[in-house]
Amino acid sequence: MGSSFGHLFRLSSWGESHGGGVGVVVDGCPPRIPLSAADIQADLDRRRPGQSEVTTPRKESDTAEILSGVFEGLTLGTPIAVLVRNEDARPEAYSEMAGKFRPSHADYTYQAKYGIRNWQGGGRSSARETIGRVAAAAIAKKVIAAQFAPTLEILPYVESIGDFSASVDPASVTREMIESNIVRTGDPAAVEPMVDLIKRTRSDGNSIGGVVACVVRNVPVGLGAPVFDRLEADLAKGMLSLPATKGFEIGSGFAGTRMTGRDHNDAFRMEGGRVRTTTNRSGGVQGGISNGEDLFFRVAFKPTATIMTSQETVSTDYEDTELKGRGRHDACVLPRAVPMVEAMAALVLVDHMLRQRALCGGLSPETQE
Amino acid sequence: MGSSFGHLFRLSSWGESHGGGVGVVVDGCPPRIPLSAADIQADLDRRRPGQSEVTTPRKESDTAEILSGVFEGLTLGTPIAVLVRNEDARPEAYSEMAGKFRPSHADYTYQAKYGIRNWQGGGRSSARETIGRVAAAAIAKKVIAAQFAPTLEILPYVESIGDFSASVDPASVTREMIESNIVRTGDPAAVEPMVDLIKRTRSDGNSIGGVVACVVRNVPVGLGAPVFDRLEADLAKGMLSLPATKGFEIGSGFAGTRMTGRDHNDAFRMEGGRVRTTTNRSGGVQGGISNGEDLFFRVAFKPTATIMTSQETVSTDYEDTELKGRGRHDACVLPRAVPMVEAMAALVLVDHMLRQRALCGGLSPETQE
Amino acid sequence: MGSSFGHLFRLSSWGESHGGGVGVVVDGCPPRIPLSAADIQADLDRRRPGQSEVTTPRKESDTAEILSGVFEGLTLGTPIAVLVRNEDARPEAYSEMAGKFRPSHADYTYQAKYGIRNWQGGGRSSARETIGRVAAAAIAKKVIAAQFAPTLEILPYVESIGDFSASVDPASVTREMIESNIVRTGDPAAVEPMVDLIKRTRSDGNSIGGVVACVVRNVPVGLGAPVFDRLEADLAKGMLSLPATKGFEIGSGFAGTRMTGRDHNDAFRMEGGRVRTTTNRSGGVQGGISNGEDLFFRVAFKPTATIMTSQETVSTDYEDTELKGRGRHDACVLPRAVPMVEAMAALVLVDHMLRQRALCGGLSPETQE
Amino acid sequence: MGSSFGHLFRLSSWGESHGGGVGVVVDGCPPRIPLSAADIQADLDRRRPGQSEVTTPRKESDTAEILSGVFEGLTLGTPIAVLVRNEDARPEAYSEMAGKFRPSHADYTYQAKYGIRNWQGGGRSSARETIGRVAAAAIAKKVIAAQFAPTLEILPYVESIGDFSASVDPASVTREMIESNIVRTGDPAAVEPMVDLIKRTRSDGNSIGGVVACVVRNVPVGLGAPVFDRLEADLAKGMLSLPATKGFEIGSGFAGTRMTGRDHNDAFRMEGGRVRTTTNRSGGVQGGISNGEDLFFRVAFKPTATIMTSQETVSTDYEDTELKGRGRHDACVLPRAVPMVEAMAALVLVDHMLRQRALCGGLSPETQE
Repeated sequence: MGSSFGHLFRLSSWGESHGGGVGVVVDGCPPRIPLSAADIQADLDRRRPGQSEVTTPRKESDTAEILSGVFEGLTLGTPIAVLVRNEDARPEAYSEMAGKFRPSHADYTYQAKYGIRNWQGGGRSSARETIGRVAAAAIAKKVIAAQFAPTLEILPYVESIGDFSASVDPASVTREMIESNIVRTGDPAAVEPMVDLIKRTRSDGNSIGGVVACVVRNVPVGLGAPVFDRLEADLAKGMLSLPATKGFEIGSGFAGTRMTGRDHNDAFRMEGGRVRTTTNRSGGVQGGISNGEDLFFRVAFKPTATIMTSQETVSTDYEDTELKGRGRHDACVLPRAVPMVEAMAALVLVDHMLRQRALCGGLSPETQE
Repeated sequence: MGSSFGHLFRLSSWGESHGGGVGVVVDGCPPRIPLSAADIQADLDRRRPGQSEVTTPRKESDTAEILSGVFEGLTLGTPIAVLVRNEDARPEAYSEMAGKFRPSHADYTYQAKYGIRNWQGGGRSSARETIGRVAAAAIAKKVIAAQFAPTLEILPYVESIGDFSASVDPASVTREMIESNIVRTGDPAAVEPMVDLIKRTRSDGNSIGGVVACVVRNVPVGLGAPVFDRLEADLAKGMLSLPATKGFEIGSGFAGTRMTGRDHNDAFRMEGGRVRTTTNRSGGVQGGISNGEDLFFRVAFKPTATIMTSQETVSTDYEDTELKGRGRHDACVLPRAVPMVEAMAALVLVDHMLRQRALCGGLSPETQE
Repeated sequence: MGSSFGHLFRLSSWGESHGGGVGVVVDGCPPRIPLSAADIQADLDRRRPGQSEVTTPRKESDTAEILSGVFEGLTLGTPIAVLVRNEDARPEAYSEMAGKFRPSHADYTYQAKYGIRNWQGGGRSSARETIGRVAAAAIAKKVIAAQFAPTLEILPYVESIGDFSASVDPASVTREMIESNIVRTGDPAAVEPMVDLIKRTRSDGNSIGGVVACVVRNVPVGLGAPVFDRLEADLAKGMLSLPATKGFEIGSGFAGTRMTGRDHNDAFRMEGGRVRTTTNRSGGVQGGISNGEDLFFRVAFKPTATIMTSQETVSTDYEDTELKGRGRHDACVLPRAVPMVEAMAALVLVDHMLRQRALCGGLSPETQE
Repeated sequence: MGSSFGHLFRLSSWGESHGGGVGVVVDGCPPRIPLSAADIQADLDRRRPGQSEVTTPRKESDTAEILSGVFEGLTLGTPIAVLVRNEDARPEAYSEMAGKFRPSHADYTYQAKYGIRNWQGGGRSSARETIGRVAAAAIAKKVIAAQFAPTLEILPYVESIGDFSASVDPASVTREMIESNIVRTGDPAAVEPMVDLIKRTRSDGNSIGGVVACVVRNVPVGLGAPVFDRLEADLAKGMLSLPATKGFEIGSGFAGTRMTGRDHNDAFRMEGGRVRTTTNRSGGVQGGISNGEDLFFRVAFKPTATIMTSQETVSTDYEDTELKGRGRHDACVLPRAVPMVEAMAALVLVDHMLRQRALCGGLSPETQE
């Protein structure tokens, strides 16, 4: 319960920060998709700790092993299991946490819910859990490219860190622009200020939040299943299921609530034989179904809960106490959040592509060019 | 697929704006809960069109009939079917829409996805579909009160309409304050300006959006199922599955991304024998699990797509054309969105209460007073 | 929970024997399938009580109303709700059952499970509940014919009643042979003895069981989802979910356990460009997946529990007592079980067809002729 | 899709006969259940190949590693991943199968469905896949014992092999009687004839089927979710999802179809303050819900498809050819089928226990003594 996602392309994630490892089982991947461990590794490397000077120094190679579901380089149509062993686990760094609840962490709620918790590095609540998602999404992206939308691009980028906002045009940002810098923003001028801000925050023993924006290009028309499984509803769920997220908005979002319908509506017009909209305040979704315009959404990430300052808290004996952060943590999760947002978007999209194929025999003819 | 919600308290919604009616089947309701049609009717009346001068004049009594699952005033533990007939359907008002796609509506995407659509009043994409949700949620609230959290209160209210923001203290707002005015805001001083704004917008043939905020009090500790079915993830999905929604944020939300961890973290302290937080930037959820503080979240609603102005659009023959809105519509959905937000919150909560009882034998002992 | 069936073509059944009616919601039906109430009515009439001298005299027209999901004669791709009102309800006939548990009925177990039961006519445990299944299956058969397998035929027939076995050749039996007689057997010579046996049993105030065999012809290759959702596993579940069933076997079944592999194996050979088997002890399924041969399975139905004889039982005050059957019942459910078996087979097949289309883009090329 | 089982205690199985290994993820296991790898190993050893002179000589230690979900000897409430590596894989033994479809195996249907197959040892269709089920069921049995029914016993045994039937009294058979002999029958006098029959069949290069009967004692009242998820329906699905199964019957089964209601009905009577039945033709289930009597059901296993005789078949180039079995196989799967049947029964029962706790707050009070 709770660790599975998707109705047709269904992943079951497992694992804790400290223990035998983390991994995922993907059930529902179509057969005959070319897949190798290297396909998965590339995305895991983008998520990996220790990848740059602005991420946590925990040393994990995060090497993926495909245990099943692939034969002679092709998927079999049967479950694909992926295993990543934990390596640089230092449970001793967490010994104080065994007896105290870290503020704004999951320690207390896990203890209250389950009556037990793995206090080593956050256990299941660690962002290390997202390895399974990223691995599954690497497979999802292969399926999308091979069978549904070869030109589809999922491009999340860091839009702001704390008060500092980058200036990025969603219509023209490229993967190269995003991946060429260690904060993964799409604005070259923002890189240095953002890196500085993260470093300053970290030396101060503090942490900081930010916003990831995401544009998805060349989205097929017709994805999304009204009424509960609207495309934006499933995206919202996927994004809010990521650690440290506090908000999601699509298209005009909260700002759009201050507009009138006359200004907000996206007029239709024919263009190149296809139905297009002149503006995209809908963010690519109308009535819960993709309309072929770019998906555009934003995800709010709170400042990392672990800070190197003494904070008031409560012990596991339920007495007031104090706690100072230890362990290796990101002062700002945003750069590593980018592949996580990408993963959840890919997982939502592939599931709705398979659902559309089941229901209607294939993607909408509107998608054909 | 797509018209069911919930894992244990599972509703299947059906129905179009014009046709035999709308309704819902609830499977998974515990037995021996007192339930009558009147319990459901009360909430349907709050959602009903034509209830006040700021809502659409469509005349629907929205009378609920319970068809099954209740015997001698008590639920049986078997599926509860609720039927509401359509009455004031005027398909002729939509005849022009048969041949044109209304901008920022679901007309085009439904046509593109399914290759067919009921063009009368939006069909399945009509807000009329939310009747099933509100009916199911009325049952959910009875279950919550009878078996899980008798003092739990779900209090959504209109926080802003367009540029105008009410001033409401989530900690002290009451249902009486909200339900005593036709816009359903919690700020008496905001009522007149909000009513005026809606009326002015309507006479202008225009529409306007806004934000519903929601506080949930006396929430049991331990609700939410990491990692994908975090409480905030399921709330986000529920809210974004409502018509016209564009955003969701919980606790500090997007504003929290501009804070540092030192300012953002919620310190723990013991109070009255229970673990409490001194602030509530988490919005009542940590690690995807409720921590016993008030849930607090906000939902963005876009301006109604139907406006009484000529707009550029495309015909079903895929030619450029123009269309002017007709039919009976809300110029602002916010007042009627309040019971919808309440419904989705109740549905998410009851499902996680049943899940918690399945997994752990009952609610967390932390919840006991 | 428990009243839904299917993963993609998903029905939610509701209703009790006495009350507002019975019905079903089908979510996941593809769009643009021609569908009218008459399509559903035809199958409901085959399931209906009072249809012949060998069925219960309860008078129900079982008139189906389609409430949603169909527009101008075509399915919309959105949920289809079907309602059948109860008419000839006589709760007074059951008043004694209010205080006593009928032997081998569901009265005691419903009471023990839920702490409440609708004692009128068995409530939810009544075979009247199968109306929803039959209605949903009528839709399923339209989908199969329109999109997947136009020549597929599901042909269940009564193979035996009590000790008397009909002589039917599954390879040549036709719907006409089965539907031309009121017991629905495929052997003209068996009709009179079977009718006599049922009448004699009924005049004796007794009841009798039997076996329904089912052959499905022109089944596409490749249906079934190993490992848990094997085609035979889902068929077994579907059949054992019917009231009064006690057994299921496919292909060689229990008799096959007494054979050796040398005699039991189905040799492959090429025939007409397709892979065929020379025998069909597999019953059309190998490794959980259809192989293109006829599906053949058998379902055991116990004698009706209601008999007009005094029996020892227990009161709802938990004291020993006696009870004599009343109400209107079938002395033998077999003739009316035939459309129920057909319904569950159609529901299992359509779901796996949609699943196969989702996973592999369409049916197996092996199926093409 | 298809490799998951259970609604609340949900397992996702993965793995092929030859490859990285096999395993399972269990999501929905309650927290604080004592669990060690040894608990799982005991059951895997009963399923293991090479355990006796009547099973396949393939040498696999089948050593289970728990990768997640357990901390300091207790379950965490989060997913439990179990991994078993393959050791004695000999793909070369299968090289001929790469180009030919083995009769009555899954080779052809996997190829036809997926357009690809792992031809080494049957791949996913190998009985090796059941390791994941047995491992998950070992956990399920710990949950049942700790939280629901400490005295519940699941006792499957070999009732017949080929034409030879053991004489076992389900009411008195013990685990010791069953596990004390290598065929796992409950009749000491049947052991030698059964062992001889298997050995003779094997030396003849042939194979043989049989029946596993299963009695479950001390079953709580109230398990099972009408109408589709009846206890017998889920048991039927579970059993028919096991490799090589062709039939399932519960209680009186197919034999009961030849009885009249007067002889078949189970009279109720009070006994020791509980409602009991004087006979148990219902097999412990009425109306889809357990009634507190012993569950009793039977499962048909066909003769192993692999035989050491030349058989007619078809090549992967779709030409007629011949094939003689190779590889290491059981001439009779019955002895090893016993722990598999036990596993599926445990998985069905634990899921319905959790569902009952969710719906009704705990087991039926009828179950209390």
